[in-house]
Amino acid sequence: MAVARTLSRYWKSRDDLIQAPRVVFISNPSDGGRETYNEVLTAGVEQLIRIWRDESRVNVERGTQKLPIWGNQIIRYTNRDEENTRFAAGHATRVAFKDQQIAEINLKLPSSIGVGTGARRAMVGAAENIVGLHLGKVAFITGGSAGIGGQIARLLALAGAKVTMVARRASELEAARDRIVDELLDMGAASVERRVKIMPDVDVSDFESLKRAFTATLDEFGRIDYLINNAGVAGGEDMVVDMDVEVWRATLNANLLSNYVLMHEAVPLMKAQGGGYVLNVSSYFGGEKFLAVAYPNRADYAVSKAGQRAMAEAFSPFLGPEVQCNAIAPGPVAGDRLAGVGGRPGLFLRRARLILENKRLNAIYAAVIRAVRDGAPLDRALNRLSGNSVSAMSHDSQAPQELRRLALDFAAQGDGICTWDQFLLTRPLAARLVSRLRLGGYLLDLPDWRAAPAERTADGNWLVSEPPDDLPFLPEGLVAKDAEKIGQGVLSQLHLGSMPTEEEVAQATVFFLADRAVSGETFMPSGGLRVERSNTEREMFGSPKSERLAQMRGRTVWIIGDHLSDYVAATVRRMIVECGVAHVVIIARTAEGGDAVVALLEDCPRAPVHVIVAGEDFEGAMDQALVTWPRPTTVVSMPTEPLPDRLFDADAPLAPDAFARVVDRNLTQHFRVARKASLYDDCQLVLVTPDIPVGADGPAFALANFIKTTLHAFTSTLAVENERLVHDVPTNQINLTRRVRSEEPRDEAEHQEELTRFARAVLLVGAPLPDAQDSRYRARIYRGTSMTV
Amino acid sequence: MAVARTLSRYWKSRDDLIQAPRVVFISNPSDGGRETYNEVLTAGVEQLIRIWRDESRVNVERGTQKLPIWGNQIIRYTNRDEENTRFAAGHATRVAFKDQQIAEINLKLPSSIGVGTGARRAMVGAAENIVGLHLGKVAFITGGSAGIGGQIARLLALAGAKVTMVARRASELEAARDRIVDELLDMGAASVERRVKIMPDVDVSDFESLKRAFTATLDEFGRIDYLINNAGVAGGEDMVVDMDVEVWRATLNANLLSNYVLMHEAVPLMKAQGGGYVLNVSSYFGGEKFLAVAYPNRADYAVSKAGQRAMAEAFSPFLGPEVQCNAIAPGPVAGDRLAGVGGRPGLFLRRARLILENKRLNAIYAAVIRAVRDGAPLDRALNRLSGNSVSAMSHDSQAPQELRRLALDFAAQGDGICTWDQFLLTRPLAARLVSRLRLGGYLLDLPDWRAAPAERTADGNWLVSEPPDDLPFLPEGLVAKDAEKIGQGVLSQLHLGSMPTEEEVAQATVFFLADRAVSGETFMPSGGLRVERSNTEREMFGSPKSERLAQMRGRTVWIIGDHLSDYVAATVRRMIVECGVAHVVIIARTAEGGDAVVALLEDCPRAPVHVIVAGEDFEGAMDQALVTWPRPTTVVSMPTEPLPDRLFDADAPLAPDAFARVVDRNLTQHFRVARKASLYDDCQLVLVTPDIPVGADGPAFALANFIKTTLHAFTSTLAVENERLVHDVPTNQINLTRRVRSEEPRDEAEHQEELTRFARAVLLVGAPLPDAQDSRYRARIYRGTSMTV
Repeated sequence: MAVARTLSRYWKSRDDLIQAPRVVFISNPSDGGRETYNEVLTAGVEQLIRIWRDESRVNVERGTQKLPIWGNQIIRYTNRDEENTRFAAGHATRVAFKDQQIAEINLKLPSSIGVGTGARRAMVGAAENIVGLHLGKVAFITGGSAGIGGQIARLLALAGAKVTMVARRASELEAARDRIVDELLDMGAASVERRVKIMPDVDVSDFESLKRAFTATLDEFGRIDYLINNAGVAGGEDMVVDMDVEVWRATLNANLLSNYVLMHEAVPLMKAQGGGYVLNVSSYFGGEKFLAVAYPNRADYAVSKAGQRAMAEAFSPFLGPEVQCNAIAPGPVAGDRLAGVGGRPGLFLRRARLILENKRLNAIYAAVIRAVRDGAPLDRALNRLSGNSVSAMSHDSQAPQELRRLALDFAAQGDGICTWDQFLLTRPLAARLVSRLRLGGYLLDLPDWRAAPAERTADGNWLVSEPPDDLPFLPEGLVAKDAEKIGQGVLSQLHLGSMPTEEEVAQATVFFLADRAVSGETFMPSGGLRVERSNTEREMFGSPKSERLAQMRGRTVWIIGDHLSDYVAATVRRMIVECGVAHVVIIARTAEGGDAVVALLEDCPRAPVHVIVAGEDFEGAMDQALVTWPRPTTVVSMPTEPLPDRLFDADAPLAPDAFARVVDRNLTQHFRVARKASLYDDCQLVLVTPDIPVGADGPAFALANFIKTTLHAFTSTLAVENERLVHDVPTNQINLTRRVRSEEPRDEAEHQEELTRFARAVLLVGAPLPDAQDSRYRARIYRGTSMTV
Repeated sequence: MAVARTLSRYWKSRDDLIQAPRVVFISNPSDGGRETYNEVLTAGVEQLIRIWRDESRVNVERGTQKLPIWGNQIIRYTNRDEENTRFAAGHATRVAFKDQQIAEINLKLPSSIGVGTGARRAMVGAAENIVGLHLGKVAFITGGSAGIGGQIARLLALAGAKVTMVARRASELEAARDRIVDELLDMGAASVERRVKIMPDVDVSDFESLKRAFTATLDEFGRIDYLINNAGVAGGEDMVVDMDVEVWRATLNANLLSNYVLMHEAVPLMKAQGGGYVLNVSSYFGGEKFLAVAYPNRADYAVSKAGQRAMAEAFSPFLGPEVQCNAIAPGPVAGDRLAGVGGRPGLFLRRARLILENKRLNAIYAAVIRAVRDGAPLDRALNRLSGNSVSAMSHDSQAPQELRRLALDFAAQGDGICTWDQFLLTRPLAARLVSRLRLGGYLLDLPDWRAAPAERTADGNWLVSEPPDDLPFLPEGLVAKDAEKIGQGVLSQLHLGSMPTEEEVAQATVFFLADRAVSGETFMPSGGLRVERSNTEREMFGSPKSERLAQMRGRTVWIIGDHLSDYVAATVRRMIVECGVAHVVIIARTAEGGDAVVALLEDCPRAPVHVIVAGEDFEGAMDQALVTWPRPTTVVSMPTEPLPDRLFDADAPLAPDAFARVVDRNLTQHFRVARKASLYDDCQLVLVTPDIPVGADGPAFALANFIKTTLHAFTSTLAVENERLVHDVPTNQINLTRRVRSEEPRDEAEHQEELTRFARAVLLVGAPLPDAQDSRYRARIYRGTSMTV
């Protein structure tokens, strides 16, 4: 203490120092007893260093001191090697002369220098960066019992870290822990059991269990250096139009909100510690920086994975300089998940089945819709289908022509074992069919069908007969062939022609975790997947052609979401005055919001404007609009409330439920609207990301960029899915948020210009669009884009 | 041999094997002598394995064998440890049961197991991935004596690799080698001198010296696993309009073509070895995947760095599965280069000086051009300037008004030490001024000034007086302040608020090199730089407004490059028929090329079409067009010859000089045109990337994508530079190459549609554009874009 006081005074009085002062305390190798005395002393010195660091930082800020003082202590009594003194001295020299400030106060000598560092002699240079890479670090890994997470846990433990693995099942966690411990013991490592901990009964969907496990780890190890958000779920594996809102929410909770819940716990802790690292394990199908990848039938998964990446990219400026935040995005990995775990079929097999089932459903759904377009009563079509017999349907003169033709096709698709060629549908497929018709508003005038029965799957009960249980419905030979084709398609995209193993990806990750300079980035451990991508940051060029605008004359347009009343009003005005739209239906969340829009329409004919106040029931409001006015040619889904302007502020951080609300309003709302509008005929769907008030900066801007990137995964996926539906609704996204603050409107004049540009953007992608069959080029550029105003 | 034959027959006859057969040969620990017998045996087994691998691969392809056989041998006599047997056995087990095929045939036991792996006991698990990370690998590093390259060499050596460092100066190389060797010896490593080699007198601009060093390394170590293209030059550090073609070429030679020269050597070798890794050390300022970053005053450097990255991205599919090819793109790094090496000022200081000098030059140049626009004779303006006195100019009633106003400004900018407030220009700045006027064609009617004197710098001799040598011209206080501002601007962009050290970047790189699954990617070891980016893959939306097209009536348009005659003809037709352009000047490389375009214009008025045959003298042809017709409103620079359809084919690889020709025709040509056209008034510049013939696939497609990405670094940089010039020439790029083959035209109908789209794209960015002052949004999107047709 006396030495510290003297040094402190000395340094404070000197202003000719070239480098910031460094102090390194070295503890005794042993107190000769049970190290109790050493431990008390160490704790005291630790506290001294902590206060000293803080005090000198404050002094520097106040200007009463020129250079900050940085201290560390080297703890020797964990080691009994002969080289103890030399090694500690070398270490102290390096610490004292290093420019970088080592955040950890206590630097423990490895219990065995040889094992810990691979060296036989005390090093003056330094190879400890490579060996003992994560020595003494504490890692908290969700889903660490298997897959990539399990390998990360294993390699981190091998690299010297303390590791807590949390997952649901105790048995799997125990097995994983035992494997790691055995391996470490084989290597001759000591006190292994104390370094590798497991916590069962933790579910990423159960935020309270997550928080408990995090706190328990902190209690156990005293600090947490690495938060590795690895666990997640596969999601609904369904098309957007077939996906329940609850399934969508469950995926986002488990894969995305769980990450935020843990970051909310970890970031203040890591800032206080002076260092930390958050790693989100995303996926190649979560896209790349500024690029979205469409992942049909996996929209919920793709959105959650894009969100994990977007969090790292958008939030990291608010975590530094203490906390690094990055993502990794592995491509397909040869391992459990791909092959199928616990008797579950592997990914490619599941996809093949899904695609085949979807093709059947889409074909029958298209036939039904075409029959309705031709004027056939929908309930009759459903009644003809309910027999569920391929052979009966093909001879049924009462059935719509297209359904009969389909049945003839199906009859030729059997393989002798399955019932694919005998039955039209299974109960789950029949339930999806009715659900689509209900979502699309086609059952609104059929009282028997209008409302969903209490149990959703009961919707399939309208089938009179269903395929027997003892025979497969799907032709499994065809499924296997398709699965192989999907797998080979993936392989052919990989530059190296092979998928990495879980261990290879984990190794790359463990190395990536050692990089102390990187934040806000996404690392792709397996490169070369060349699937089609779509730019998130596309800018608006040109204007819509007048022929396209002319097609809007006399039509109906919906604008859902009233928060940005001036943007809504600017768009409504242009649509009425310039395009001659007959009905503009504003579906507002509140009556005040609707009034605010109408108040801004003074200079515009009011007759075409109708307001529905939806409250939280957007679906009901959409159905109401359907039965009141002609079907819409354009549906614009807009933000319904402003973004919070907080994130990881020390005083008032954004609480997880507030973050969940941002996700609900800006992602789930678009999903709810899109799920219905994708089932309308002759409709264009436009999704709008949040605006930032003029002059606002900081967290709200980061949140808006997070939404923009994450939503684009949805937009691009839905655009591809919709090409497979008979309605072929083009879906595009308009961003009111730019990449960098300097591009945002700076004053009222630029805000006014933005309003004009926004209205033009809505028309550019919202006016009737070229058919996909018409021109490949024109069709593509207007589908799934993300365009910044 | 007999065992091999028996095993081979056995495996060939079995078709019920679950896993591909593996064979591991283990050599004797010692032959009791000088290991000569062992060495002969090892060489024999190596050859046997090589043939066996190859034969079984061919058999599998032919279908005469089901699973390929893979062999390795473990060489023990390099090791004398007691644990030799146990360690080798454990190693053999792992090799035999590993799914991954280890490309290296010979797996040498480390000379000391303890040092090599950090283990005291033979491991059954496996931690050798982390310790001894690059054991036995051979690395060839250009520019390994200092900076990031030096640290990579050091860390690779620490990780067990054999390293050859090549650079120019022997003294620096020796110092670097000695440091590494000392450090390794300190760690207790053995036979260090044999593992760390240096080769002086190697210059990346001297391709023969590079090839010699590569061959010498191969002779020395018998193989090369890592080619690390690290060395490079800073480039011209000048605006494009001030940069000599020779300087541009020198930068591209040293930083880009050198990489290809070495890849051309390394790839066949690595394919034959069964494995290898090419790492191009690019830069953050080379952009990111699908994104360009503008780097004003460093266009040559930015293009070379973008090219290094584009090579990895575009070429890697042609190198796999044996060879990985990636890039790293470090941001600013705290180290020698930033601080300044060998008495040279550091990067920020150099930039500050450059920016200040450029501001002065741009101001005087703008004043001269404005005077000419107002009708003042140019030679009189130059004569008034030649006095080079700030005070005289400010009172000179004969001088143009704007020059006098400028001089008054300058007079107030001194700091009492410099001559910045007394002299208008230095000789080098005066030379640049004249060079710009000559390039822009403003001196064509002034015989005294028209041609450059033999020595370029002599162009500054028209100054009657110049600043004295004993006083600085620049106000160094202001320079230092600006340099600090630049540095702090960079820091504020980094999420972690600090620049990584060279060692940190090198460590990340050495880890990245250990990832066996990644190819075609660019790794950013220091994330978080949020400079403005521009999308390379932007798609064309909308059409040009008719008001803009109307402005082309009666104007002149140039199209330079005749290779794509149908694209040229389609554009010319639309310009004449639709826009009423008065003169279309086609600057063709050959007479036949010009004729081919004219022949396609049958249905179009021919009177406005003029052809100049340029040969290789594009500059001369441009000057000729300037004096013959009114100045152009649009200059379109197009490809002049088709791309080769070869790359790393075993039989006929693309030779380095053929690759150099691709670069010359598709990058340097655009630079030559742009350098002049950026100095024209009221002009829009359009650069076009190569087309791929319908149906062509493979290497030409990769080369086109390489060009597209690399050129965009130029386009986006030039666009920013041009906003600083009085002419403010908007520059944009049109891509005839798409990201993926499936988006390319598939038949004649789609090719025709592409011609139409191309002509529209040229008008979209080539018709007179909104002024940057007019609207920030509109101005930005039409500057520096890269738009795919």
